[in-house]
Amino acid sequence: MAKLLVLYKTPSDAAAFDKYYAETHIAIAKKIPGLRHFEVSRGPVATPAGPSGVHLVATLTFDDASAIQAAFGSPEGQAAAADVGKFATGGVDMFIYETANV
Amino acid sequence: MAKLLVLYKTPSDAAAFDKYYAETHIAIAKKIPGLRHFEVSRGPVATPAGPSGVHLVATLTFDDASAIQAAFGSPEGQAAAADVGKFATGGVDMFIYETANV
Repeated sequence: MAKLLVLYKTPSDAAAFDKYYAETHIAIAKKIPGLRHFEVSRGPVATPAGPSGVHLVATLTFDDASAIQAAFGSPEGQAAAADVGKFATGGVDMFIYETANV
Repeated sequence: MAKLLVLYKTPSDAAAFDKYYAETHIAIAKKIPGLRHFEVSRGPVATPAGPSGVHLVATLTFDDASAIQAAFGSPEGQAAAADVGKFATGGVDMFIYETANV
């Protein structure tokens, strides 16, 4: 499998972020072709030492890295990426990688 | 469920990192009590724009956030955390959060 890991940094208005994410962005992102599994953090994102600068973690699973490439190139993927710009006021880090269980 | 997400930044010697991680660290980390699932990235960790500064992503799954707290407090968890200092020459970011599927 392959993962698209999305780390949303703390936004300027956390309540507005949460409302938009739950009510609008999830539905847009779920239309991305090839998406097999969609997991989000619930509640605070901490570090072992205490609070983190990350507000929400989303993990989108696809069959492989080429499926993620194809997803980014699709109209639905481009719509989801464009939508991120509407609410991710704290910025966002995205990572793409294939995975194995150990 | 809850996740311990570990982002290992690019180390000074990637080959030495990979060898130590595969041959030593995984076995130490797998002893952590309460660990339900252990997934690692295989191959490069990219961003949508190209290379990232992350060399490896490990995702450890537990039943809930309190299980992660207990794991960190256990001798096996402390041994795994101490071992990270032996090979993570590029530094490491860790995030702890509970998850939900959407």
